[in-house]
Amino acid sequence: MDKHRLTRILQNLQRGDLSIEEATGKLTHFVNEDLDFANIDHHRSLRKGFPEVIFGEGKTSEQIIGIMEKMMSQENVILTTRVDEEKAKRVLEALPSCRYEADARMIICAPEDPKPTGHGTVLVLSAGTSDIPVAREALLTARYMGNHVQSVFDVGVAGIHRLMRHREAMEQATVIIVVAGMEGALPSVVAGMVKAPVIAVPTSVGYGVSFGGMTALFGMLSSCSSNVAAVNIDNGFGAGYMASAINHIPLPAS
Amino acid sequence: MDKHRLTRILQNLQRGDLSIEEATGKLTHFVNEDLDFANIDHHRSLRKGFPEVIFGEGKTSEQIIGIMEKMMSQENVILTTRVDEEKAKRVLEALPSCRYEADARMIICAPEDPKPTGHGTVLVLSAGTSDIPVAREALLTARYMGNHVQSVFDVGVAGIHRLMRHREAMEQATVIIVVAGMEGALPSVVAGMVKAPVIAVPTSVGYGVSFGGMTALFGMLSSCSSNVAAVNIDNGFGAGYMASAINHIPLPAS
Amino acid sequence: MDKHRLTRILQNLQRGDLSIEEATGKLTHFVNEDLDFANIDHHRSLRKGFPEVIFGEGKTSEQIIGIMEKMMSQENVILTTRVDEEKAKRVLEALPSCRYEADARMIICAPEDPKPTGHGTVLVLSAGTSDIPVAREALLTARYMGNHVQSVFDVGVAGIHRLMRHREAMEQATVIIVVAGMEGALPSVVAGMVKAPVIAVPTSVGYGVSFGGMTALFGMLSSCSSNVAAVNIDNGFGAGYMASAINHIPLPAS
Amino acid sequence: MDKHRLTRILQNLQRGDLSIEEATGKLTHFVNEDLDFANIDHHRSLRKGFPEVIFGEGKTSEQIIGIMEKMMSQENVILTTRVDEEKAKRVLEALPSCRYEADARMIICAPEDPKPTGHGTVLVLSAGTSDIPVAREALLTARYMGNHVQSVFDVGVAGIHRLMRHREAMEQATVIIVVAGMEGALPSVVAGMVKAPVIAVPTSVGYGVSFGGMTALFGMLSSCSSNVAAVNIDNGFGAGYMASAINHIPLPAS
Amino acid sequence: MDKHRLTRILQNLQRGDLSIEEATGKLTHFVNEDLDFANIDHHRSLRKGFPEVIFGEGKTSEQIIGIMEKMMSQENVILTTRVDEEKAKRVLEALPSCRYEADARMIICAPEDPKPTGHGTVLVLSAGTSDIPVAREALLTARYMGNHVQSVFDVGVAGIHRLMRHREAMEQATVIIVVAGMEGALPSVVAGMVKAPVIAVPTSVGYGVSFGGMTALFGMLSSCSSNVAAVNIDNGFGAGYMASAINHIPLPAS
Amino acid sequence: MDKHRLTRILQNLQRGDLSIEEATGKLTHFVNEDLDFANIDHHRSLRKGFPEVIFGEGKTSEQIIGIMEKMMSQENVILTTRVDEEKAKRVLEALPSCRYEADARMIICAPEDPKPTGHGTVLVLSAGTSDIPVAREALLTARYMGNHVQSVFDVGVAGIHRLMRHREAMEQATVIIVVAGMEGALPSVVAGMVKAPVIAVPTSVGYGVSFGGMTALFGMLSSCSSNVAAVNIDNGFGAGYMASAINHIPLPAS
Amino acid sequence: MDKHRLTRILQNLQRGDLSIEEATGKLTHFVNEDLDFANIDHHRSLRKGFPEVIFGEGKTSEQIIGIMEKMMSQENVILTTRVDEEKAKRVLEALPSCRYEADARMIICAPEDPKPTGHGTVLVLSAGTSDIPVAREALLTARYMGNHVQSVFDVGVAGIHRLMRHREAMEQATVIIVVAGMEGALPSVVAGMVKAPVIAVPTSVGYGVSFGGMTALFGMLSSCSSNVAAVNIDNGFGAGYMASAINHIPLPAS
Amino acid sequence: MDKHRLTRILQNLQRGDLSIEEATGKLTHFVNEDLDFANIDHHRSLRKGFPEVIFGEGKTSEQIIGIMEKMMSQENVILTTRVDEEKAKRVLEALPSCRYEADARMIICAPEDPKPTGHGTVLVLSAGTSDIPVAREALLTARYMGNHVQSVFDVGVAGIHRLMRHREAMEQATVIIVVAGMEGALPSVVAGMVKAPVIAVPTSVGYGVSFGGMTALFGMLSSCSSNVAAVNIDNGFGAGYMASAINHIPLPAS
Repeated sequence: MDKHRLTRILQNLQRGDLSIEEATGKLTHFVNEDLDFANIDHHRSLRKGFPEVIFGEGKTSEQIIGIMEKMMSQENVILTTRVDEEKAKRVLEALPSCRYEADARMIICAPEDPKPTGHGTVLVLSAGTSDIPVAREALLTARYMGNHVQSVFDVGVAGIHRLMRHREAMEQATVIIVVAGMEGALPSVVAGMVKAPVIAVPTSVGYGVSFGGMTALFGMLSSCSSNVAAVNIDNGFGAGYMASAINHIPLPAS
Repeated sequence: MDKHRLTRILQNLQRGDLSIEEATGKLTHFVNEDLDFANIDHHRSLRKGFPEVIFGEGKTSEQIIGIMEKMMSQENVILTTRVDEEKAKRVLEALPSCRYEADARMIICAPEDPKPTGHGTVLVLSAGTSDIPVAREALLTARYMGNHVQSVFDVGVAGIHRLMRHREAMEQATVIIVVAGMEGALPSVVAGMVKAPVIAVPTSVGYGVSFGGMTALFGMLSSCSSNVAAVNIDNGFGAGYMASAINHIPLPAS
Repeated sequence: MDKHRLTRILQNLQRGDLSIEEATGKLTHFVNEDLDFANIDHHRSLRKGFPEVIFGEGKTSEQIIGIMEKMMSQENVILTTRVDEEKAKRVLEALPSCRYEADARMIICAPEDPKPTGHGTVLVLSAGTSDIPVAREALLTARYMGNHVQSVFDVGVAGIHRLMRHREAMEQATVIIVVAGMEGALPSVVAGMVKAPVIAVPTSVGYGVSFGGMTALFGMLSSCSSNVAAVNIDNGFGAGYMASAINHIPLPAS
Repeated sequence: MDKHRLTRILQNLQRGDLSIEEATGKLTHFVNEDLDFANIDHHRSLRKGFPEVIFGEGKTSEQIIGIMEKMMSQENVILTTRVDEEKAKRVLEALPSCRYEADARMIICAPEDPKPTGHGTVLVLSAGTSDIPVAREALLTARYMGNHVQSVFDVGVAGIHRLMRHREAMEQATVIIVVAGMEGALPSVVAGMVKAPVIAVPTSVGYGVSFGGMTALFGMLSSCSSNVAAVNIDNGFGAGYMASAINHIPLPAS
Repeated sequence: MDKHRLTRILQNLQRGDLSIEEATGKLTHFVNEDLDFANIDHHRSLRKGFPEVIFGEGKTSEQIIGIMEKMMSQENVILTTRVDEEKAKRVLEALPSCRYEADARMIICAPEDPKPTGHGTVLVLSAGTSDIPVAREALLTARYMGNHVQSVFDVGVAGIHRLMRHREAMEQATVIIVVAGMEGALPSVVAGMVKAPVIAVPTSVGYGVSFGGMTALFGMLSSCSSNVAAVNIDNGFGAGYMASAINHIPLPAS
Repeated sequence: MDKHRLTRILQNLQRGDLSIEEATGKLTHFVNEDLDFANIDHHRSLRKGFPEVIFGEGKTSEQIIGIMEKMMSQENVILTTRVDEEKAKRVLEALPSCRYEADARMIICAPEDPKPTGHGTVLVLSAGTSDIPVAREALLTARYMGNHVQSVFDVGVAGIHRLMRHREAMEQATVIIVVAGMEGALPSVVAGMVKAPVIAVPTSVGYGVSFGGMTALFGMLSSCSSNVAAVNIDNGFGAGYMASAINHIPLPAS
Repeated sequence: MDKHRLTRILQNLQRGDLSIEEATGKLTHFVNEDLDFANIDHHRSLRKGFPEVIFGEGKTSEQIIGIMEKMMSQENVILTTRVDEEKAKRVLEALPSCRYEADARMIICAPEDPKPTGHGTVLVLSAGTSDIPVAREALLTARYMGNHVQSVFDVGVAGIHRLMRHREAMEQATVIIVVAGMEGALPSVVAGMVKAPVIAVPTSVGYGVSFGGMTALFGMLSSCSSNVAAVNIDNGFGAGYMASAINHIPLPAS
Repeated sequence: MDKHRLTRILQNLQRGDLSIEEATGKLTHFVNEDLDFANIDHHRSLRKGFPEVIFGEGKTSEQIIGIMEKMMSQENVILTTRVDEEKAKRVLEALPSCRYEADARMIICAPEDPKPTGHGTVLVLSAGTSDIPVAREALLTARYMGNHVQSVFDVGVAGIHRLMRHREAMEQATVIIVVAGMEGALPSVVAGMVKAPVIAVPTSVGYGVSFGGMTALFGMLSSCSSNVAAVNIDNGFGAGYMASAINHIPLPAS
């Protein structure tokens, strides 16, 4: 039910052109449409200030350009994930105000320095060098959603002492994203060392019984530490988004 | 290295009984032990006020009683999860100051009204009546870890209108735990409606291709909403713990 | 929003106690509740005359009795599925007007001869004697949802000639439910012989690589016949329900 | 046994050239052939008016042309599914009277406006933009098999309000095909809102634990709504075919 | 169509009471039934002298007795597989002329010394002592289907020299059944040593990644020897039946 | 131990240069080598007249040519499987006396008409046109291993009447190879109609839950007919080899 | 061929009763038996001093007693694994000289203090208290196979500092067995800290996506540390045996 | 904490600029850094003389060259695994002092004849010719880590006599690496013949139910021989590394 029709019904009731029963009937009947009308407003406010994100995999550069152009009039942060170098080049030719973050495979159209609006810091840890693209995707997503971010890469469990060096950063983070492939043990170790919530991101790094990230994922979900929850394999974007949601939880007015 | 030994080394250095080189050698050599000593203190502070939790499954009532008795001198909140009715009865005979929450299958030794220390409200939603034990485990865990909690059960996606009724509660929650078995679709729907972080808990409810919760879990991880992360199947405790960690993120002094 | 509150708002508007803007605000605000109120009515009409069904597995006889008693005032057909003999006995002691169909493991509270309201006949075929419980569950579900039903059991593909004998029944059915375990080949063969829609129900009959019905299910979904769709393993109830939905599709007034 | 041979045997019996025993022997002996003879007629009538469909994947453009040419003399609707753009181009050069539906990846040789012969409307819903090729395959299959069709795309569960807007269309459809990848939750939600039969089509859209459509499929089969049955992953054709079978169920003469 | 009805039609034709057209119509119409009639005879001859087999698992002793009693008037060899000791006891009380083979978990009603009718010897090898029940089921099935049988148990690949001792028996066998659990390597080794066909039977013996026989099965199917084919896990009966089919292949009259 | 060394030891014993104890020692010591010496002779006789087979997949044309050239001096039948067209072309340029069977993807170097040495006929049935390459591989393997072969293609279960037409051929075959993808139901149906041993070959034809042939394989192993054993997916060669082994079982001299 | 027959052949040759050709024939013919004769001796020496081990699971107490009694005359160390308390009680009644290690579920008949014969120390680490039965099985197996053993339990990765405390023990061990369930991360961490070979033992501890130990196993095999190899799930015995084999590698005489 | 800072703290204590309490505080606070400082030294000594290894898969030739150049100043053995021919060519152009081992797909920069430092011989056995690349990777890894190595290729279980010929080599080896694909039976057979520890390496050789090496892996872990542990699929490097660790176990000074 759009506003005009609602007003009309109420006016008709007010004027005596409709009885209360008739007005009730009309209102009940259009209630589904109402829902939609309510949602749209709500929805818009919900997402305000958040980057709209385009999943670039499987889209042509033409399709990406098309969607981005449509969004550019309304949004001031646009992220496109999973774009390979060649595709990115063609997109940037059309949209020269954007830039390509090659290691994260993302195209970003946004001011260089997004202002952090979250409560604290999102720390991104990753286990191996091959996990870096996913870790960077998480990092940039969190950053452009308005979070202060920090990262430590290459601190896998096979050299546990390298991780230990960063204990302070871990203890000061508000949320920690831990990216790991192969056996995916890092989130368990990290979560055992901090009380912050840990978002675990399995990567498809590995071979054989790594099962394209499945072993890492299941290991993370079987973690003997309890302040851990996981996202899908290679889903750096989702981890950054979830971390941002945590770092932006509303506080009671006090 | 315990404190006494450290003091002794430093005293010996101070007294001139040790050279700096000798002191360095001793300190370096015992550094592993030191680490432990440091950790214990740190660890204790980390966990202060948090319930220690005993996983009751596969333990005899005697074993549970033994562990609980040892903890009771030091902790004022003790939770034991996954205890069936009969076992619980035997435990409560030995520990009459505790109580059994049958629907959550938990034994709780704690004051009835734990004081909320978190920022806001943890909301627990569950899809079907069979998901209630897991949902209650999450709820009580969060509650006894110092969170204001709220719950709405039986709002599965096959009757989407029932969920809609609780939109306000969803919008006001700080963290939402969504418990669902079978196709596990509820977290996707909920996360699409709010901006709070959503912890998805798959349950082993269902049969055939529900695969004991696997289908629900994979559905949750494949969610097209991004503010969702998942814990292991039936892991109500973990969800409550993670939600509590989110609801207690440290805020910058301001 | 319940009816009384809606009426009150409209009355207040009519009386001039509320301006149109105020009324609009109140209506928009309560729209979620409204939705629910609308849905319930709609829902009831949607389901009228259809059996409400209780999934008996994992429920105690006391729980089943409780739910059934609550429903008995409102419904004239009540089905409870997956009830073993012992549980059924206890339920029937409390509810002597119901009866137990042992081979289908269902408790039925309904007049013996439900009047068919569907367009034609639902035919249930099953491959082996062990598939009969699932087949009977499908049959009785369809029957008590108002369908003329017919059944042919024990016509597996290892003796294809036995199936051939029932070609006429197959050709005259409006919908065919085919229940099969092990390799689950029967639906493919049947669907190749008719133009009616075929609902395939895999059963957990078999061992080893039958994988508790998974092989039958995947075989059915891989069927080289196209007028086949499948339901979950052992889901006789779902097949009966789906077949009834098909047999009751609304026809354009003409 | 062809008709001529049967007639000859019976003539010989009539003439006294064969005894009853001899005729019986001959008839029994050739009974397999008879079966075939019977089947062919039956078969032809079974399929009358239905499009013959060619599965294009893995066939060369030459093979496709060959099969289509052979069929064109006898059939007035020919569908070829899963044809990529390049292959289609080569086929259309040879068969210029056909056309290519790029988004459905189908080649269609048929009059533009097939006359609907089914009882009502087949509605096709799809969750995400990536599901459109499968949804379109279902739509066109149903359309060219003689059904009035309608479609609503991009109504995934992460934005449940968008789905709500189409409630009326859902309630008026005779059969609903729901196409969804990732967590595959849409069919559950839709089936909970209508009483029509719902054909669920999982798509291979997604990554990681989407398992190429498996998670969506299992979610659909685990649906807590009962008027749902599923077809194989990406099997838009099968869904359209099944929906058409449902929309053409024979009605008793009255 | 039974013989009587066929004869009647032909008599009527002979007598002139039916025209050829009318007779053709009647014959065509009943062709499905005819098929069945033909098959039954054929079927009977096909199976003559072969044991009818009852799958005892999941059947009560009463059900088993019922089926066996019905068969006893017509068959002189009756096998019931997968019967545990207790059930067997109750069956034998009712049918004292049968006997129970505890190690094969079979009830056998047959003369002690079935006459071999096959071409040569069926040799049954098994890898471990836990494989013996399945091996014995295969052996007794083959024996009572009319084959000369021989067996060597406990010749697993971890002690390859024990197998070597039986090379002569292997070389003289017509068919070899190899029963093995765990890694299931024995059939590969055996098939590499002989030119006879080898039927591989995986057993559910093992734990962990033995996957209840799956690893053995897949190992057997991946065998680098080519004269191997496999049956389902623990399917000793099937292996005995298949071996018997091989040992009874028809020879051209010469 | 080669023959020369054995002879030398025995000569030395005979001559008195070795005592019996010394000879025993030497013989025992070399027994492993002896084994090998024994095996080689045996092996050669075992394989006489059988084609040596090269698995072409993953080998370069150069490697294939190299192996084939080495074999050509000793063998008069050489088969190479899984060779694509391009590779085959390069091989045939080097070895012009061989020929390429494109539909079976095999290179064959053998006289055109190998003389059948088996007892009867190997019949190859296949379900769909896409199964033909595997079926042809089976057929040619069996043929060149000395078997009279026959084939019927495209007799899938979705059109069961087409299969019926070939009942006579099925009943006269000594061994039947049944090749099927998708749901893999054909071997069950065929085995239910004959008493000959049936070798089931699953193919990787299909998509989605066909799982690259896994569903067909598991269906075949779960077959409710018992005269069936299966080989690995797409293993036409193995099926042909196994069928040949069955068709060549030694007969007792009589 | 037993020694007597060999001697007889050689004597006959020596005496001139056999020609060299005849002796060669006889020797070649019996070579399989010879092999066995050789193996037995060799075998015995191979295993001397090693405990023969009985897998108790699935065996009755009577069967266990029978096997143990037969072994007791020849062996001085007898281990029986996977024996529950009740079965053990019955066995010990019959064999009072043995004892039951309840936490390892083993029956041991051996002198209390087996003399270590290995090169160094076998260290057994385990992650959680539930892993102790498997860890103890490994420990006792290694101990009774003649190894100096040491153990540290409950040093899981969620409290990494507890592990650190035992660094010295780890660095001094010759072989380390690491037992862990759930995510199975401990072996990776340990192997990263030492240069000794690490035997990883996954346990079935955990639930949900722990998959009964599968996740731990795959994590261990995917380890980013390289001095790790794994045994089957819960296979404490195998780990102890393998560790013993490593700790007893033969050294070159020097 | 680096050495300088430690020294400074101790000097300040010595000088009286710090009290013992202050020094304790500082030392405790920096303990994490200390750990790291300790580890680095330790780590270096741990790895001395061992080749650092680069996993070449997924790295560009530029990346490989970069890493290798950095390492060349410090290490005298550098191994890069999984490098295809083309990539290797480009690397060797930049680093002409290295060489490419094509069959093992490794680039090696090391003196041709590394001096063995291990206790005995590492023997590498492989089942089929396709397993050779993995076997060679294992062999060269072990060799360049300072082990005397030996290899026997193509001794699969389908021709068990070929394996027998190498019994002596097997019995004299200190560690045996067994590389096998398909059914992976070889390690079981080999381990049954020796008392040395056996490292089993599954390869991805095979098709269908070989599951890319999974069947071989599971077979190896299910081995009925106990002196076997496994590494990941195709992980020749890991096997060589583990074998080297075993062959270098420290011996007690005596």
